[in-house]
Amino acid sequence: MTLEIPEVVINRLPVYARALSALALEGETVVSSQALGERLDVTPAQIRKDLSYFGRFGKQGRGYNVQSLLAKLREILGLDRKWRVALVGVGRLGQAIAVYGGFEPQGFQIVAVFDSSPDVVGTEVGNVTVLPADDLESFLRQNPVDIGVVAVPAKAAQEVVDRLVNAGIRAILNYAPMTPHVPRDVTIRNIDPVLAMQSMTFYIKQRDVPAAK
Amino acid sequence: MTLEIPEVVINRLPVYARALSALALEGETVVSSQALGERLDVTPAQIRKDLSYFGRFGKQGRGYNVQSLLAKLREILGLDRKWRVALVGVGRLGQAIAVYGGFEPQGFQIVAVFDSSPDVVGTEVGNVTVLPADDLESFLRQNPVDIGVVAVPAKAAQEVVDRLVNAGIRAILNYAPMTPHVPRDVTIRNIDPVLAMQSMTFYIKQRDVPAAK
Repeated sequence: MTLEIPEVVINRLPVYARALSALALEGETVVSSQALGERLDVTPAQIRKDLSYFGRFGKQGRGYNVQSLLAKLREILGLDRKWRVALVGVGRLGQAIAVYGGFEPQGFQIVAVFDSSPDVVGTEVGNVTVLPADDLESFLRQNPVDIGVVAVPAKAAQEVVDRLVNAGIRAILNYAPMTPHVPRDVTIRNIDPVLAMQSMTFYIKQRDVPAAK
Repeated sequence: MTLEIPEVVINRLPVYARALSALALEGETVVSSQALGERLDVTPAQIRKDLSYFGRFGKQGRGYNVQSLLAKLREILGLDRKWRVALVGVGRLGQAIAVYGGFEPQGFQIVAVFDSSPDVVGTEVGNVTVLPADDLESFLRQNPVDIGVVAVPAKAAQEVVDRLVNAGIRAILNYAPMTPHVPRDVTIRNIDPVLAMQSMTFYIKQRDVPAAK
């Protein structure tokens, strides 16, 4: 049953969980779908519908218990455990990812870093020694990893994704500016600020039209 | 009319444009919706429907002319001009954004960088001198900017977004791990690798269930 939940719903759950964490920190114990929606610019109906895929939460007119809904979402999303991450590519972007402080507190630990350049292999990046890309398969055989992060140039990205998938990884976070192919049983998310900017310029242009002479 | 185009459609157009650029570089002159779809893991029907919002492209059974469709998409998205970008926050993440080589070739130029810390104000980041955050409004009054990039800690992000919006910016790329509020006439995109990872662990968990004892 859970496999039929739309991906857009799954993608919103971490946003709800983050907002509930913030509410809990602020000392709130109960939150209505209305108040949660206002916080996130989502309609209350959307929140109720999204959560309805996972059972009944909250009582009519009483709102959700912040702690119990948060615990439930963390369980659904698997945020209550540690996840092992391998990073491939430690150029400028990969370095920034490796030292980014936001992953570890959320349970995502970068346990291995790979690069094909002899210049960086053997150096320390974010407390991890960079391994040669050739060792990817042998490392992953001995040290299974949950998520592969791809931070190589666009040209090399598909090959790296294929190798990660063939080595058994079923979740890929791709920073390369291209759209890699993955088998149906592999989940991929693309992080691409240029695409995000390019989708915004459409709206800036729309606005500029009436103002132009 | 164009204002009624769903946002998900607009978000896919830069992906199509990028694939068409790659095809053009490979020397392809014509591409079918089938072939484009296979490249992007999108159905041909989806591509045809998305493009139909903007007029008629390609001829039945003959596919799209790569160069002319690319030119049309670039025009629709405003990729045929330069966009001025201001970056707020030059901690570790902001530094990485400032030196990231992927924006400029796509027409996005970081023309100003701001930070509130006296330690970094006055230093050079990616060929731009860091200005004090207090100067944000006066700078933007004299040097209008199209897109604001927010790379400050979560706690400071809403205030920075508000200041950018009040100074006239109508497009925000937010890297802070929270969901800022913006008025309806402002477009915002959130770049958040942690949320992306958290939406993937759901699927990893689903797969692990049958395998677990």
